[in-house]
Amino acid sequence: MRQSKLFGKTLKQAPKDEVSINAILLTRAGFIDKLSAGIYTYLPLGLRVLNKIKNIVREEMNAIGGQEILMPALQPKELWEKTGRWTKPGKEVMFQLEDRSGKEYGLGWTHEEIITPLVKKIVSSYKDLPLYLYQIQDKFRDEPRAKSGLLRGLEFSMKDLYSFHTDEKDLEEYYQKALKAYQKVFKRCSLELLVTEASGGSFSKYSHEFQVLTPSGEDIIFYCQKCFYAQNKEIAKFKADDKCPKCKSGKMAEGKSIEVGNIFQLKTKYSSPFDLFYTDQNGKQKPVIMGCYGIGPSRVMGSVVEVHHDQQGIIWPKIIAPYQIHLLMLGSENELGKKAKTVYNKLLAQGLEILFDDRLDISAGQKFADSDLIGIPYRLVISNKTKDKVEVKRRNEKEVKLMEIKELFKKLTSEQSDK
Amino acid sequence: MRQSKLFGKTLKQAPKDEVSINAILLTRAGFIDKLSAGIYTYLPLGLRVLNKIKNIVREEMNAIGGQEILMPALQPKELWEKTGRWTKPGKEVMFQLEDRSGKEYGLGWTHEEIITPLVKKIVSSYKDLPLYLYQIQDKFRDEPRAKSGLLRGLEFSMKDLYSFHTDEKDLEEYYQKALKAYQKVFKRCSLELLVTEASGGSFSKYSHEFQVLTPSGEDIIFYCQKCFYAQNKEIAKFKADDKCPKCKSGKMAEGKSIEVGNIFQLKTKYSSPFDLFYTDQNGKQKPVIMGCYGIGPSRVMGSVVEVHHDQQGIIWPKIIAPYQIHLLMLGSENELGKKAKTVYNKLLAQGLEILFDDRLDISAGQKFADSDLIGIPYRLVISNKTKDKVEVKRRNEKEVKLMEIKELFKKLTSEQSDK
Repeated sequence: MRQSKLFGKTLKQAPKDEVSINAILLTRAGFIDKLSAGIYTYLPLGLRVLNKIKNIVREEMNAIGGQEILMPALQPKELWEKTGRWTKPGKEVMFQLEDRSGKEYGLGWTHEEIITPLVKKIVSSYKDLPLYLYQIQDKFRDEPRAKSGLLRGLEFSMKDLYSFHTDEKDLEEYYQKALKAYQKVFKRCSLELLVTEASGGSFSKYSHEFQVLTPSGEDIIFYCQKCFYAQNKEIAKFKADDKCPKCKSGKMAEGKSIEVGNIFQLKTKYSSPFDLFYTDQNGKQKPVIMGCYGIGPSRVMGSVVEVHHDQQGIIWPKIIAPYQIHLLMLGSENELGKKAKTVYNKLLAQGLEILFDDRLDISAGQKFADSDLIGIPYRLVISNKTKDKVEVKRRNEKEVKLMEIKELFKKLTSEQSDK
Repeated sequence: MRQSKLFGKTLKQAPKDEVSINAILLTRAGFIDKLSAGIYTYLPLGLRVLNKIKNIVREEMNAIGGQEILMPALQPKELWEKTGRWTKPGKEVMFQLEDRSGKEYGLGWTHEEIITPLVKKIVSSYKDLPLYLYQIQDKFRDEPRAKSGLLRGLEFSMKDLYSFHTDEKDLEEYYQKALKAYQKVFKRCSLELLVTEASGGSFSKYSHEFQVLTPSGEDIIFYCQKCFYAQNKEIAKFKADDKCPKCKSGKMAEGKSIEVGNIFQLKTKYSSPFDLFYTDQNGKQKPVIMGCYGIGPSRVMGSVVEVHHDQQGIIWPKIIAPYQIHLLMLGSENELGKKAKTVYNKLLAQGLEILFDDRLDISAGQKFADSDLIGIPYRLVISNKTKDKVEVKRRNEKEVKLMEIKELFKKLTSEQSDK
C-alpha cells in the first residue's frame, strides 16, 4: 500500500477525549477513529490488524472442531424472557428497542438465548453430539464507563464458541481442550496471560478468565509469583503476600489486569429453560450439557497495544501487524523514486505485505516518527545516502543494518516461508 | 467436511412461515435458520456462501481502488439530525434506541452520516482526493414486510462504497468505473442483470439500480427486449409495448425484479450539511463531491437461489457454492468406507472443497435427494456397483459419467487451476 493514498492520518498530540493508552496510540497512528464513547470506526490499518486477530482465533477454533456460523444481533424479547435475562440483567447490559409494530428486541451481548433453541431444532440424539459451534460477530453492551478504548466498547467484536455434550465428563475434556486453544491464540498474539479462576456462577465451581497483567487493566487479580496460579479478587479467599494455595511455596501478588477471554461450564443452565434434550443409547431423554467460550478480537487488539508499545508508539507483534514491512523513501529525486519503486514492486512480488511511504512533501524526521508510531516490525529506508544498500531496522531494536537489496530479499523471503 | 458432523439438517417440507423460494430452499437445505421475520442465522453451509460472495465483492472493490474500513452500527442521533434523516425518514426506516444515560442512537441502515464527518477529519486538500472507501458490514432496517427471506431483512449484510472527488467530472468517471465493477460482481455470481435507471433524487438526473428479473421480485421495471435499456417503473414516462426510447426499435416489456445493487451520484448532498470542503490548487475552498455504491451480499445470495434452482433444490454457481464437490458414499461396508475415505482425502489434498456424505444410517435415495437440494456443482458417487470407478454428475446436467478415480483427479485439478 502506498502511504500517499492510505486513508488515515497520524496525529502528534493525543486526542483530548481519550485516556487509555490503546485508544491514544491507535488514534494517533491512524488505526481507529472514535465515533462516540466506546464506539469506533476501524480505518484501513486497524481493520487489517482486527482481521488478522479474527483469523488466528478462527484457525484455533477450527482446530478444535468448531463449525463457524453467524447469528443475528437483533434478538426477539421472548427468547430472553425464557431465561429471565430480559429483566435481569436486562437494561443494565442490553440495548432494548422495538420495531414499528411494537415488537421488542434486544441487541445481542451474548448468544445463549439464540443458539440453544437453534441447536434444539437440529440435535435430537446422542449421535448428534458433541457439537461445537462458534461465530465471530459484533456485539453490543450498554456500558456505563466506556473510557478504555477497545478494551470496553458499546459495540465490539466477539468470538463466542458454544459446546454441546452428552455428559459432564465430555464437557470437562473439551473445556480443557478449549483452554489450550485459547492459550495458543494469545501466545500467537504475543499476549502473556494468566489463566485465572473466577466465579463459576451457580452451576460450576469456577470459570476461567484469561487475564493480561497491565496497569490499565480494570480487573484485579491475585497471582502466584512462582507457579502463576491466579484468582480473580472477586472470589479470592486469600490476600496479597499470602502463600500460594496451589504450589504452597510462592507468594501471591496483586495486579491490575485485562480480561481478554473467558470460558465457562454452563452445564444445563440454558438447556433447561429451552428444553434442549437428547435421546441416549437406551432411548432415555437427557438434558444436553453446555459450555461457552469467549474471546474479544477488538479487546485483544487493544490489549496488545497496552502491552507492546514504547514512548514512540506501537510495537506490533509480526503476526498481527498491519503490514510486515514499512518501506520509507527519503527525499524526492527521480532516481531515488525509481529505486524505491523497484524495491517496493519486488517485495510485493514476493508476496510480502508492505506499507510504502512514498509521500513527497513530508520530512525525513516526520516519516521516522510516523513509522515508530505505526509500529510495523521491519523498517527499510531508501535514501541517497545509502546508494545500492538499504537501511534495515526492527521496530523493537535500536540497531540499524546496511544491507544489499539482494541480500535483504533473500532474508525476508526465508523469514516469510518460516511463518 | 464430513456431512455426518455438519451442523444443519435438510427438511422435506417447506417451513410453514416462509413463502419466498430463497427462504424455503435455503432453510430446507440447511443454509439458514429463521430467528424472527427478516432475521436469519447463517448455518455453516450458508456462511460459506455468504463469505464467498463478500470476497468477490471485496476483490472487485479493491480493483477499483477501494480501501476497506469498518464503521459502527450504533450511531449517535446528532449526526442524523444534521441531515434531517433522524426524523425523515427516521423511524420509518431506522431502529432508534437510547443508552442508560438517555443518549439516543440509531442502528445504521446506511452510513453517509458517519463517513462524511469521518472523511472531514482526514481530507483537507485536493491532494487527498479522489478517495474511495468501503465496508462490508451488517445493517438494520425496520422493514414493514419482511416476507422475502434474504431479499428483504431487518438485519442484512451490506457492502457500501463511498467516493470523494474534487469535481463532478471525476465523479462521473468513477461512477462509470464502479458500474463496470458491479457488472463484474454480478457476472461472477451468475446473475444476469439489467442496469436500470431510477430516481436520482434532487441532485442527479438518474441513479442506477442493478435489477435481476424474477417473478419473486418486489420492484417493477420496464426493459427493452432488444437493447436491454431499462427504467424503474417509478420514474418511467413510457409503458409496456412502447418503442424503446434508446434504440428506437425494440419493444419495452414490463417485469418483476430484485434490486441487488445501486449506485448514486450524491454530489454535495452530504458534504454540504457536514461542511466537507477541500482546498484546491489555488487555495480556494470547495465542497467535496460524493458518490455512493451499494451491494447487499445477503440479497445477492437470496437472488442467486431465486434464479438458479429447480424442483429438486438449489443449483449453485461454482464460484459461490459452499463446496465444489459433493462426495456420496452409498452403503456401509468396510471396504467401501475405506475407498470413499481414500478418495475424500486425496481430493482434500488437492486443495478441493468437498462435502463428504459419510452418513451411515441414511438411504441412497435420501442422500441423492439431499444432494440435489443442497446443490453443489459436482456430485461423485462411490458405491459397490461401480468398483474402481466413480459416478460423476453435474448438478445442472442429467448425464452421469463413470470415471476412473485417477482420470477424475486429473480433470478436477485442471479445472481448479483454471478458476
